[in-house]
Amino acid sequence: MQDIVKDLFIKNDKKIVLLVMDGVGGLPREKGGKTELETANTPNIDALASEGECGLHLPIGFGITPGSAPGHLALFGYKPTDYPIGRGVVAALGIGFPIQPGDVAARVNFATRDEQGRITDRRAGRIPTEKCAELCELLSSISIPGVELFIEPVKDYRAVVVFRGQGLSDDVEDTDPQATGVKPHDPKASSPKGEKTAQIVGEFIRQGLELLKDRQPTNALLMRGFAELPHIPSMQERFGLDSLALAVYPDYKGVSRLVGMDVVEDLRDLDAQARALKDNWDRYTFFFVHYKYTDSKGEDGDFDAKVGEIEKVDKFVPRILELKPDVLVVTGDHSTPAVMRAHSAHPVPFLLHAANLRPDATTEFGERSCSRGVWGVIPGVKLMPLALAAAEKLAKFGA
Amino acid sequence: MQDIVKDLFIKNDKKIVLLVMDGVGGLPREKGGKTELETANTPNIDALASEGECGLHLPIGFGITPGSAPGHLALFGYKPTDYPIGRGVVAALGIGFPIQPGDVAARVNFATRDEQGRITDRRAGRIPTEKCAELCELLSSISIPGVELFIEPVKDYRAVVVFRGQGLSDDVEDTDPQATGVKPHDPKASSPKGEKTAQIVGEFIRQGLELLKDRQPTNALLMRGFAELPHIPSMQERFGLDSLALAVYPDYKGVSRLVGMDVVEDLRDLDAQARALKDNWDRYTFFFVHYKYTDSKGEDGDFDAKVGEIEKVDKFVPRILELKPDVLVVTGDHSTPAVMRAHSAHPVPFLLHAANLRPDATTEFGERSCSRGVWGVIPGVKLMPLALAAAEKLAKFGA
Repeated sequence: MQDIVKDLFIKNDKKIVLLVMDGVGGLPREKGGKTELETANTPNIDALASEGECGLHLPIGFGITPGSAPGHLALFGYKPTDYPIGRGVVAALGIGFPIQPGDVAARVNFATRDEQGRITDRRAGRIPTEKCAELCELLSSISIPGVELFIEPVKDYRAVVVFRGQGLSDDVEDTDPQATGVKPHDPKASSPKGEKTAQIVGEFIRQGLELLKDRQPTNALLMRGFAELPHIPSMQERFGLDSLALAVYPDYKGVSRLVGMDVVEDLRDLDAQARALKDNWDRYTFFFVHYKYTDSKGEDGDFDAKVGEIEKVDKFVPRILELKPDVLVVTGDHSTPAVMRAHSAHPVPFLLHAANLRPDATTEFGERSCSRGVWGVIPGVKLMPLALAAAEKLAKFGA
Repeated sequence: MQDIVKDLFIKNDKKIVLLVMDGVGGLPREKGGKTELETANTPNIDALASEGECGLHLPIGFGITPGSAPGHLALFGYKPTDYPIGRGVVAALGIGFPIQPGDVAARVNFATRDEQGRITDRRAGRIPTEKCAELCELLSSISIPGVELFIEPVKDYRAVVVFRGQGLSDDVEDTDPQATGVKPHDPKASSPKGEKTAQIVGEFIRQGLELLKDRQPTNALLMRGFAELPHIPSMQERFGLDSLALAVYPDYKGVSRLVGMDVVEDLRDLDAQARALKDNWDRYTFFFVHYKYTDSKGEDGDFDAKVGEIEKVDKFVPRILELKPDVLVVTGDHSTPAVMRAHSAHPVPFLLHAANLRPDATTEFGERSCSRGVWGVIPGVKLMPLALAAAEKLAKFGA
């Protein structure tokens, strides 16, 4: 499938907008009730659903709960299992760090530990980014022979560290225990290849803890998502698209860079995203617009707030439509039901809006209504070929 | 996909029950009529369908009629085309025979032939199992140089023979002509590798017919399903499940053993299955409950009797629910429409019942109603990942 698309793409000026409400899929709050999306008042998106084709997509596969990066790769038309990418790489790309082949990147959380070394807060009271930057500066004095070290703030309590040197490997397990009341894990190699790197990480943590020891509440370091840069062909190579990402959060800028998208920096909200979309409209053929807070509120377990975030996106939709995109896809990268407070494996509603479609009976954008749309349940990676076809960007296969 | 699941499984105590009504899928008896399942009065299963998610599954693929073993492998989460297993192996495992790698097993029917050697009854008047055991004893005197022989009764007119020795192969064609009024086929190698075994089988039949010649109506032997043991990773290895099979019929115990399930012996009916389920509830995390007679009545072409068997299972369902399984899947391994008197390629209705689902509009468990469920038509092998996800036994994929 992927190779067919690669051989068939046609460049034209038609414009595709992919609007992603992160974690939009949900679940009923109570038996017999509606999901977040079914509850939200979304007249603009519903109108698109009425005029378009609807369905549900499975970002990775049946029963598989997607992480953010693979969920987005699927939406971008890349089979996620073909391109495993670690959190560390996503984080490094997200802040624009020029990560190189052979580098090993990892996510760092500043955290709080008690006197016995047990983690009491995995996020150190959600310190502000400025504080995080200060701590990264402090940790920059760490020195390990034979390794170049970069430690950079990401957002709030989150940072990224990149190890550069000969013979490194990302075969190192997380030190983050993903729980409080326990000590962090020691960095452990997951294969013999990772042993050297695990030792280096151990030394990094030892020196780091020493530097942080009087820095309550940020007196601990948790590391996860050790990763090297994978090779992924660009959206240009694969689909002939000039693509632009309009995302507020670093991780989504990161995964966009991974597929060769240009990225607009310093977008703070939907209004800024709308303006950037308009300003860049003539220069690109594919626009990825990402909205994070639907997922955040789902992870917080706040059903009503997630409903509110969906309604904010609905009010933003006319600003996309003003620009008259040839194809508009509205969907999510995974489900984050508020009742589960986490990503889930449930399929994700989507709508495809363009000329030359077969509008189905779905007139509301929701999980159950989309399941009755023309497409039923399809793999997430197939949305991109559908969008390309709707934009007349794919040639006939065979004579 | 399969490898992803293998890398993501999480062990927890949540319990999954897979209730299989063998051959449950059916067809309308007359134009415009209802299928067996649509006809049956199934208030308990319908309530589960109302509260759960519904769909149809294709055990093997579009247009493919499943045999019993591959149909069940799919339900257990194993892609059947990756694990071809012959009937002989299933039969041997079903009676608990310790079949070894390199053994060749085959199903044997005691049958009746006329003076010209033509088969007049492929099942020898469905002789009782005791009689079958007596005949197996008789055939145990067969001696073939260089080969160890085991011949064991299965049920009624059916037995299994296992050949053990050097250089054997299951590349031997069935001798059962699957018809009366004709002679059995000679055992023929389907590849050069099978030639030695075909000769041994020929000698086995020659000596067997000699021993049976005055034993009307059991004066013939029909053999089919020559098979060697395949290597299949266990449910424990693949999914981290402690699994238990509760089946009355030997073949279903056999296919359960093949995937490493423990098997409860000497279950005679649904009542015994319910008691065994309760008795073993604390010791396992996956329970396979099999009901054979829906298929048997379908094969008999007895529409009304099949309806009655479905209703018996419906009455049994509350005994499962008493135990409060976290996830309950109700389905079949294939369709056996009474009007066709045989397995068929039609997709099979399923329902998934658990917390954290999106109940669809389907309120009755039937072929047409399930086709309007959230899942549409999906591969049978995907039911297991859906059940695992609903039991929170699969971790997130990627960061």
